[in-house]
Amino acid sequence: MADNDVIILRLGYRLGRDPRITTHLALVARALGANKFLFSGDEDKRLSENISSVNERFGGEMVVGHLKSPMAWLKKFVREGVDGGPPGTAVHLTMYGAPYQNVTPTIRRDRPLVVIVGGAKVPSEVFQISQYNLAVGNQPHSEVAALALFLDGWYGTGSISRKMDGGELIINPSNHGKDVTDNK
Amino acid sequence: MADNDVIILRLGYRLGRDPRITTHLALVARALGANKFLFSGDEDKRLSENISSVNERFGGEMVVGHLKSPMAWLKKFVREGVDGGPPGTAVHLTMYGAPYQNVTPTIRRDRPLVVIVGGAKVPSEVFQISQYNLAVGNQPHSEVAALALFLDGWYGTGSISRKMDGGELIINPSNHGKDVTDNK
Repeated sequence: MADNDVIILRLGYRLGRDPRITTHLALVARALGANKFLFSGDEDKRLSENISSVNERFGGEMVVGHLKSPMAWLKKFVREGVDGGPPGTAVHLTMYGAPYQNVTPTIRRDRPLVVIVGGAKVPSEVFQISQYNLAVGNQPHSEVAALALFLDGWYGTGSISRKMDGGELIINPSNHGKDVTDNK
Repeated sequence: MADNDVIILRLGYRLGRDPRITTHLALVARALGANKFLFSGDEDKRLSENISSVNERFGGEMVVGHLKSPMAWLKKFVREGVDGGPPGTAVHLTMYGAPYQNVTPTIRRDRPLVVIVGGAKVPSEVFQISQYNLAVGNQPHSEVAALALFLDGWYGTGSISRKMDGGELIINPSNHGKDVTDNK
């Protein structure tokens, strides 16, 4: 882990109900530059298999992992960081939070960051443990959109066009149709 | 309809598989300032019921409608606009498209806009009919995130914090917990 790595933590994953939204979250995390995607709640091997398969085809090194005790992990992260590095910063995305567009520029960038994305029921501890409770608008919409807008703000507009190394397929931007280079 | 209204068109909705993602799309459309959400494919009354209920609680006037013949609708929109106004502009969001962050500023703003979000299989006509095929990054991720980032670019960062009139509940931004005003 580098000191400025970004981890996404999805709480309360439910098998049967959440696979598609959670896969979207992990893909957004990957495409927008996060380094790691963790989830708690039900275990589901398909999530990491899906992302590994996307890495193989389209490049990058996104890692997916499951947490059995997310609150213990989060407290430790905020206190000690990871791997003996500096303490971590926790940002909880919630529609009740403060405006992300004003607060994000104030967050220090030399610490590992975890971005917490709620599930069905978010333990109230999460509000306390997190140094930042941020809203991407105070209207109900989508955790997928909230994560995308937050990460776009964090890395800067247009950062979603970053290249990823090691994929088999490269999509060449085109206003007219599909233009794909296959390096397989 | 005003000449600069923004309509979202979701193609190929499938009952059983798509309700949650499509509800997220409609909520993102609403929260980020679009005026109307149309979908084709299976009919499903719950989509407009859900959004009406969100309008009632949180304000705004987002309208949801179903299209039986989306391609006919789209061709007519691009040719004649709506209600005798100017012809419309069609933006198709696709991972194969040109970089949205470069192209969006070149799109004229005095015409009604439709933003097309694909479903399972997008007819190749859509690439031809649309004046713009735009990619929100050329990596696979999520149509929910793509729509959010496109609309955020269209209306300007932070526009998601706009107020909506007429709701029962107002969420007051807070870095510490939930602060809600209930006007019911």
